[in-house]
Amino acid sequence: MSMIYNKVALIGLGLIAGSMAHAMRRAGLAGEIVGTARSAETRKIAVEIGLCDRVTETAAQAVKEADLVVLCVPVGAMASVAAEIGPHLAPGATVTDVGSVKQDVIAQVAPHLPTGVHFIPGHPLAGTEHSGPHAGFAELFDNRYTLLTPVPGTEPEATSRLGRFWEGCGANVEEMPPDHHDLVLAVTSHTPHLIAYTMVGVADDLRRVTDSEVIKYSAAGFRDFTRIAASDPTMWRDVFLSNKQATLEILGRFTEELFALQRAIRTGDGDHLHDYFTRTRGIRRGIIEAGQDTDAPDFGRGASRQEDGPE
Amino acid sequence: MSMIYNKVALIGLGLIAGSMAHAMRRAGLAGEIVGTARSAETRKIAVEIGLCDRVTETAAQAVKEADLVVLCVPVGAMASVAAEIGPHLAPGATVTDVGSVKQDVIAQVAPHLPTGVHFIPGHPLAGTEHSGPHAGFAELFDNRYTLLTPVPGTEPEATSRLGRFWEGCGANVEEMPPDHHDLVLAVTSHTPHLIAYTMVGVADDLRRVTDSEVIKYSAAGFRDFTRIAASDPTMWRDVFLSNKQATLEILGRFTEELFALQRAIRTGDGDHLHDYFTRTRGIRRGIIEAGQDTDAPDFGRGASRQEDGPE
Repeated sequence: MSMIYNKVALIGLGLIAGSMAHAMRRAGLAGEIVGTARSAETRKIAVEIGLCDRVTETAAQAVKEADLVVLCVPVGAMASVAAEIGPHLAPGATVTDVGSVKQDVIAQVAPHLPTGVHFIPGHPLAGTEHSGPHAGFAELFDNRYTLLTPVPGTEPEATSRLGRFWEGCGANVEEMPPDHHDLVLAVTSHTPHLIAYTMVGVADDLRRVTDSEVIKYSAAGFRDFTRIAASDPTMWRDVFLSNKQATLEILGRFTEELFALQRAIRTGDGDHLHDYFTRTRGIRRGIIEAGQDTDAPDFGRGASRQEDGPE
Repeated sequence: MSMIYNKVALIGLGLIAGSMAHAMRRAGLAGEIVGTARSAETRKIAVEIGLCDRVTETAAQAVKEADLVVLCVPVGAMASVAAEIGPHLAPGATVTDVGSVKQDVIAQVAPHLPTGVHFIPGHPLAGTEHSGPHAGFAELFDNRYTLLTPVPGTEPEATSRLGRFWEGCGANVEEMPPDHHDLVLAVTSHTPHLIAYTMVGVADDLRRVTDSEVIKYSAAGFRDFTRIAASDPTMWRDVFLSNKQATLEILGRFTEELFALQRAIRTGDGDHLHDYFTRTRGIRRGIIEAGQDTDAPDFGRGASRQEDGPE
């Protein structure tokens, strides 16, 4: 793999940015990697562990002469970062992001970017429940999808170059419209996370009743939920607030279905339950056949990493 | 480890019974292992793969002269199996089960057992989403809890012997009252499974809208749910119908909390969301510290097995 961008600026140095730095180095995709973070502590750690070639104090400094700028901050911070970097972007630079929501990010970022800059929103479908500059690793994006949601008028060559960059990081790259992205992710990621958070919260209340038994005997089911619900609180707050419409729509369907199953339990309608559970079992097979999971506990990736969590 | 029972009869030959057979052999816990299943196909496979020392056509035949009888059938089938074996049980035999619900199993089984037989309900907190006689493996119970819920009047020596047997299978053994078991499991297992089934069902409906994208882009969150929702439909139908009261109680709390979070999303109350997500994050740490999970994707067990699923 050869160099695709001369200078890549990572704004925010958490799990995703850190993993991008490792993945870029693995494949030699960037001439120089510059990083920055709002927190002085994060910048200090990034310097200590050599996460980037150079760490700057401000985002405005980081983006100077960069031909790729990646916004790796929580969705709620995108507008202020875009406002800060806008005047300092190099002509012809590509700006992308890794946020879990796309329509809202576009609304926040696009107004602050000068003409001549290519803005191509993106979303790598990969993550763990860990966060911070220590959390990244080069294999995070391997064989996972990165979705690009270019807005009308974007130069195809700029999009294609960003696609090659993500492929160099190990990802499969696809394009879709931003509103479609937000609906699909509300189903596959955002609503499941909200539900997991809720169930873990209920268990926490009950823990006061049953002492530590809820944790002690936490088995499959609840244990998977706790892994999901351990994800970064700030990131997820922003996801729900910025993908409000799609999340509320899917939540509405979810509670409708849940009430139907609840009624079946109350009335003893075993056929309804059995039919429903048989149908959902088939979906698992589809996911394994689509290559997005395996029967093995490491999801086919090797045993050294945990890959569940925020996306 | 030395022999604890001369003859163990396994009634039903699915994942749990198969794993018990492997675990008993690993530790030499049984003089003879006899198995039976209602399905002729299951019995045939069990013979072919040498799962037991002997496979009988009926449960009545299997339990003859057995000093340990383990009921490994779905909870809804316990009463009829108990009625069949009752007259054929050896005096002084211990009867136990592996059902996920305890009060209902006791109500179904106890009336059919003759005096002089020790009935000690049990529940190994272990499973995968796979089922059938092929699915078992010796390590399934290693370092997992098996809960025993002896009823008043049970001889302590019989309970202690069954406890040593489960420890020989690799499990940590604890005792608790049956009603308490059912509440704890409603929180840690039953309600989470129902929720996962529901979310996967909602996604299945939407798949017709978004083609195969829900599966293609199924990432952490939803992917974990599909693993849970792939569990055996008959077993889970019976769990919900037989642990109705506790499941409905926990479901009520769950929807109450979910609606509070939904309102926070609708009204844009980011503080409420952030506080909630921060609280749930801490619970994950408790589970890892309790030794019931690890940061590693194989949960510390080695990379060859999947251990999520029904419990």
